[in-house]
Amino acid sequence: MDVTPAEQFTAANLDRFLAELFDFLRIPSISAKSEHNGDTRHAAGWLRDRMRDIGLESEILETPRHPVVLGEWRGAGADAPTVLVYGHYDVQPAEPLELWTAPAFEPDVRDGRIYARGSADDKGQLFLHVKAAESLLAADGRLPVNLIVLAEGEEEIGSPNLIPFVEAHAERLACDVVVISDSAMFAPGLPSVLFSLRGLAYFEITVHGPASDLHSGSYGGGVVNPAMALARILGTLHDDSGRIAIPGFYDDVVDWGDETRAEIRALPFDDEEFREGVGVAALSGEAGYSTLERLWIRPTCEVNGLLSGYTGEGAKTVLPAHSMAKVSFRLVPDQDPARVAELLRAHIARVAPPETRVEIEELHGGMPWRGQVSGGLIDAASRALARSFGRRPVLTGEGGSIPIVGEFERILEAPVLLLGFALPGANMHAPDEWFPLENFDKGIVALAALLEELGSGAFAA
Amino acid sequence: MDVTPAEQFTAANLDRFLAELFDFLRIPSISAKSEHNGDTRHAAGWLRDRMRDIGLESEILETPRHPVVLGEWRGAGADAPTVLVYGHYDVQPAEPLELWTAPAFEPDVRDGRIYARGSADDKGQLFLHVKAAESLLAADGRLPVNLIVLAEGEEEIGSPNLIPFVEAHAERLACDVVVISDSAMFAPGLPSVLFSLRGLAYFEITVHGPASDLHSGSYGGGVVNPAMALARILGTLHDDSGRIAIPGFYDDVVDWGDETRAEIRALPFDDEEFREGVGVAALSGEAGYSTLERLWIRPTCEVNGLLSGYTGEGAKTVLPAHSMAKVSFRLVPDQDPARVAELLRAHIARVAPPETRVEIEELHGGMPWRGQVSGGLIDAASRALARSFGRRPVLTGEGGSIPIVGEFERILEAPVLLLGFALPGANMHAPDEWFPLENFDKGIVALAALLEELGSGAFAA
Repeated sequence: MDVTPAEQFTAANLDRFLAELFDFLRIPSISAKSEHNGDTRHAAGWLRDRMRDIGLESEILETPRHPVVLGEWRGAGADAPTVLVYGHYDVQPAEPLELWTAPAFEPDVRDGRIYARGSADDKGQLFLHVKAAESLLAADGRLPVNLIVLAEGEEEIGSPNLIPFVEAHAERLACDVVVISDSAMFAPGLPSVLFSLRGLAYFEITVHGPASDLHSGSYGGGVVNPAMALARILGTLHDDSGRIAIPGFYDDVVDWGDETRAEIRALPFDDEEFREGVGVAALSGEAGYSTLERLWIRPTCEVNGLLSGYTGEGAKTVLPAHSMAKVSFRLVPDQDPARVAELLRAHIARVAPPETRVEIEELHGGMPWRGQVSGGLIDAASRALARSFGRRPVLTGEGGSIPIVGEFERILEAPVLLLGFALPGANMHAPDEWFPLENFDKGIVALAALLEELGSGAFAA
Repeated sequence: MDVTPAEQFTAANLDRFLAELFDFLRIPSISAKSEHNGDTRHAAGWLRDRMRDIGLESEILETPRHPVVLGEWRGAGADAPTVLVYGHYDVQPAEPLELWTAPAFEPDVRDGRIYARGSADDKGQLFLHVKAAESLLAADGRLPVNLIVLAEGEEEIGSPNLIPFVEAHAERLACDVVVISDSAMFAPGLPSVLFSLRGLAYFEITVHGPASDLHSGSYGGGVVNPAMALARILGTLHDDSGRIAIPGFYDDVVDWGDETRAEIRALPFDDEEFREGVGVAALSGEAGYSTLERLWIRPTCEVNGLLSGYTGEGAKTVLPAHSMAKVSFRLVPDQDPARVAELLRAHIARVAPPETRVEIEELHGGMPWRGQVSGGLIDAASRALARSFGRRPVLTGEGGSIPIVGEFERILEAPVLLLGFALPGANMHAPDEWFPLENFDKGIVALAALLEELGSGAFAA
């Protein structure tokens, strides 16, 4: 396999690339904290300048809070495909600070890992795309595609302004494919492409009983107990086989078919290791599915929080007036959070005791995402990853939700390709976040190769 | 009906008695608050002095925290019965202060009620006994019985030192009957004697799942959710008819028989009024029993508190590591909290998911109490109450627990007579606590008549 001029450039400039990344990581662009607003803006300006340095047109575009940084290169011509890279330059807070081995914003290389807040999520991975573009531009004088880099500064606070931004700039952001690197590979040395994301339907359920807290001795037995009623309601949400017992809940659940299920079962995954890692006596879940299937392609119903009555030390004999549960569902293609909300409301209306009044508030919803498992785009990504990692990628699911993925597809009418280079256990929202040093090089090479593949025009599904 | 000299004395001195009571009520003897330790001791000394004033031997006896005040009159001779009156001179905190119409410790007479913290619970009712004794001693020069007044200062903090005190002084406190006035009549004008108290078995149940909180997207579906597991466990505690579904739970429950149940059903009780008062859409409870039966003679299982995961505003997608419920049972004769603890442990061991670890902590237990429903003591109380109120008392149950009642019977081997003069809605632990002015007079007359009845020696069962 011949080394390309771009790959030669990458190799020759790797130390400088890394030094630049460290500069980026040193800026504490914590979007959640207003005292870091200056740092967040500094990170945006820094990124704009680095994109200008390598030959992109770049500017900062305001949103109501933290700005978007846009980088563009349109030199490939109207016939060449346009690739939009999405990433974010903001980071999670670093607390608890005392649990970091080295300070969160002083990048530290230890044991082949770059430790720093943002190294994996997502500055480090966003920067791979910029350096891939630089390598191609420096070596070839041009890119094989038209490129748009869209970096937001609000991902860690729920991207409140991103969808309106994309909608407002849909024409300028028009593209043939969206590429996102904000995730992890399945295992070291095993490049991965995501084929699905779970969606979310999150509710707060409040059960109202008596008008005020009552003495459980004086009133207990004669008046409904809303905490007990809530427990009984929650107990109806699953059957004994771990399936969700809400009528109609599975109607829209995609059957991924034997081929995809076989691929999932073929992945190197050790139930026992997983069990030990989470610290439970035994794994559990929906009967008839493997752990990875339960996490990726099957929906869930979870209680995320419970609150009622007296929760302090010792005994208080209160019959509570209210009880509250946070209940969320992870959804899989082609479920819809609005439909799940309807089904849940109907179910609870059937099972709730008539002596209670139940309120259901919809706190949060996000569509699941169904990616491609074959076709030109997957083939292009596979070849690019194989060039860098020496093997074709595996297809993986993701139990969590990234609502913007579906939104990009909806607004821009372009498929999304999700491929990340972090590794499991990267501590993305925890102390000692890290990114594998090896994948800094390999990621740049893979992403440059991806642009070449996409530029060949063969990916259209 | 001739007015007795003691009754004449009571009538002639009522204004002075009331003024003295107000002095007592002005002392903020809040046992729970150490900044009121001086006030609590002041109340003890005030009570000792008032008992000395009327001719009792009285002294303060120390306990590890707030002292006991003992008053004694032994002049009736060894053949006369000895009556022990129990009450408490400490009071609940007055918070929230802003909800009192007049300040909590400035007694205020409005609409025929004495409003003040402690007016009903229990200074006001304890003082009735002292003034009954004064009236008899002043009018007759003697009491018809030997009298012991035992007033503790820790009832509102759970009487931590009372049982050891009674055990240590069992010989001195030896008596033929214990009389307690710390409760309410069933309705205005309807004197009441208690025939049962429910006991208590209070538990904290903790369900442990994964070793730490997990992301509900990344792990949900593959790992047990301890909040959902807790809800399912709690859901097994009742069947659909409102009966407790723990095997063996009803084995020791007394069947009070048709006569007592008929008496309960004959009481003037309006389900609709009760329902409106507590503010529920409908009443509920164990099938086959009336509301008063559910509250008095049937056991319950209540959730007093729930806590797990995220309970703040909005959505947090956490799969919690733990969940906690405070669960308590009200017990009826002849249930035993220790036996209920065994049954609960066995039941939860059967129903808890094997992926969880469940901890059950016994926080609090108290035996139920089974009083007399007929016999000499009830007849004596009936005649005394009829003399004052113009009608015989009704027998009532009490859904709450007063663990010391059973302890008095056990240690002193004497029956307990529970008759109170407050009224429903007395706000005993709430703002605007009150005691009916009319019952200040009637209570003193009834209690003096009770001592006469007991002195006649006809009450021994």
